[in-house]
Amino acid sequence: MEGEKNIEAHRPLMKTPLVLAVDAGGTNTVFGLVDHMGSVLIKTNVATLDFDRPDALVQYVYRKFLEEFSESVPAFTLEGIGIGAPNGNFFRGTIEHAPNLPWKGIVPLASMFTETFGVRSLITNDANAAALGEMQFGAAKGMKDFIFITLGTGLGSGIIVDGKLVYGHDGFAGELGHTIIIQHGRPCGCGRRGCLEQYCSANGLVKTYREIMMGSGLPAGNLGEMQAKTVFDLAMGGDEAAFYAFNYTGELLGYALANAVAFTSPEAIFLFGGLADAGELLFNPTILSFEKNLLGVYRNTVSILPSALPENDAALLGAASIIWTAKN
Amino acid sequence: MEGEKNIEAHRPLMKTPLVLAVDAGGTNTVFGLVDHMGSVLIKTNVATLDFDRPDALVQYVYRKFLEEFSESVPAFTLEGIGIGAPNGNFFRGTIEHAPNLPWKGIVPLASMFTETFGVRSLITNDANAAALGEMQFGAAKGMKDFIFITLGTGLGSGIIVDGKLVYGHDGFAGELGHTIIIQHGRPCGCGRRGCLEQYCSANGLVKTYREIMMGSGLPAGNLGEMQAKTVFDLAMGGDEAAFYAFNYTGELLGYALANAVAFTSPEAIFLFGGLADAGELLFNPTILSFEKNLLGVYRNTVSILPSALPENDAALLGAASIIWTAKN
Repeated sequence: MEGEKNIEAHRPLMKTPLVLAVDAGGTNTVFGLVDHMGSVLIKTNVATLDFDRPDALVQYVYRKFLEEFSESVPAFTLEGIGIGAPNGNFFRGTIEHAPNLPWKGIVPLASMFTETFGVRSLITNDANAAALGEMQFGAAKGMKDFIFITLGTGLGSGIIVDGKLVYGHDGFAGELGHTIIIQHGRPCGCGRRGCLEQYCSANGLVKTYREIMMGSGLPAGNLGEMQAKTVFDLAMGGDEAAFYAFNYTGELLGYALANAVAFTSPEAIFLFGGLADAGELLFNPTILSFEKNLLGVYRNTVSILPSALPENDAALLGAASIIWTAKN
Repeated sequence: MEGEKNIEAHRPLMKTPLVLAVDAGGTNTVFGLVDHMGSVLIKTNVATLDFDRPDALVQYVYRKFLEEFSESVPAFTLEGIGIGAPNGNFFRGTIEHAPNLPWKGIVPLASMFTETFGVRSLITNDANAAALGEMQFGAAKGMKDFIFITLGTGLGSGIIVDGKLVYGHDGFAGELGHTIIIQHGRPCGCGRRGCLEQYCSANGLVKTYREIMMGSGLPAGNLGEMQAKTVFDLAMGGDEAAFYAFNYTGELLGYALANAVAFTSPEAIFLFGGLADAGELLFNPTILSFEKNLLGVYRNTVSILPSALPENDAALLGAASIIWTAKN
């Protein structure tokens, strides 16, 4: 038949499947095109606060996609849109009551993207997304059980069990930053006291350093404006109080992570983000406390490791991997 | 053809598929035949300590199976052997260093059963097994995300995520009884201090009551021989110290369970075992503390419920469901 002879001629042009990754943050929203190997082909960012309504952001992203991305990137198919956002709910495709975003209440962001772009859109919170990114593109490749911790302003987490992200019954699983580590401890933005992220995060480290200095009576410069980076520099310069602040942070983090192991028995725990970049200053006391607090059966079987995601693109890679891992 | 006419005549006798369920405990080992609806067709028990070697127990079970079970139960096929045992490891089919069993070290119990019976054998710890039993036969039917807690001498737990038991990387996930709830707290048999089961268990309740009475200077009878049942009876009779002991137990349990929710975001948490039978005395303070300690996003969304497994057969039903749920 004639058709058989013309198969070669009719073969369609091969198009690269890409994902539009969106990282919606309190300050900036970054978005870009990511392939299944984790290459970011193009990206841009915009101030989230410029959009008093979420659909205005969606329209902005759509215009950029049509006018810039589609022009700059050679033939591709859009496989879907992966969105990482604070309080992102995977099951409902929503952002729900995110305190750091300009849009209040429940925002159906995934369906807004789907309606505009005509492809499926999936959302989860940024730490969950980064956990998926670590599994697909980072140091957790091939691992089926691990915990991913982001140590930034707060403490976020994503839990992988048997190769899948744990969403739980309502899509909000993996909030280790809001486990209460010290009853009646430091007040937290969530309205309770003693949450892990009040101690083990960049802000927590600064609070600990301030408490030490205010208790010491030593001159301490302007404690109110202190940043975690300053505490790091002080500790590296031999400042004992700063060094102790890192030790205390690591001691509590190790204790909390040892308890976490008793839940899902992971192969590894990855630490990501600004505070994790402190390296041995944080990892040494964390691992020491971790092993000390670990139940015997788990001892020396769980690695605490730095994330291998590139810091600049981690959020985008995470957002992209929501789509890539959902394909399997 | 002739064969076609004789299909009816050649139809084999319908045999009921059954599982041999084995609950190996520190005192007794119970075993019996269980169908996929959760009916225990026959069972018996034997003192575990009568067997100084595990293969002697396997041979004993085999003889009972051949001589009694197979005689008493009408035509059946043996689908597999499900074993619930302390420190049971699902991945390796072993019991590993169980302090309360007569067999030391690592015991490959599943392969012993498989070699003797010629069917597949699966093992996990008793609390994990009971969690599977609750999902297949109990109040968690149709639930995909829940936590199961046994409150007996100690505190055991099994975590179900997305319809599957969480085994973790090494098969020992779900040891909530050994999360450290109070740093530098009561010494635990595991060699550490402050484990949840030192507070929230039958033994923990008695310890709390003793601490209250010894601190009070009131006459307290023979505190050394006190049982949880005695504390229950005292509380029901209006004894304030016993009532307070239950309140304290529930307060810590609710706090621990609120933290647990931040891991896997379950639909419900089931309480099983002797201490759970105390009913409102335990559930009221537990739920009060649970809701108080819960992160806002989870509040009023997670039920704390009594297990619906029949207390007498819970262990057997759990062991059987290791095989039944593995079939899916």
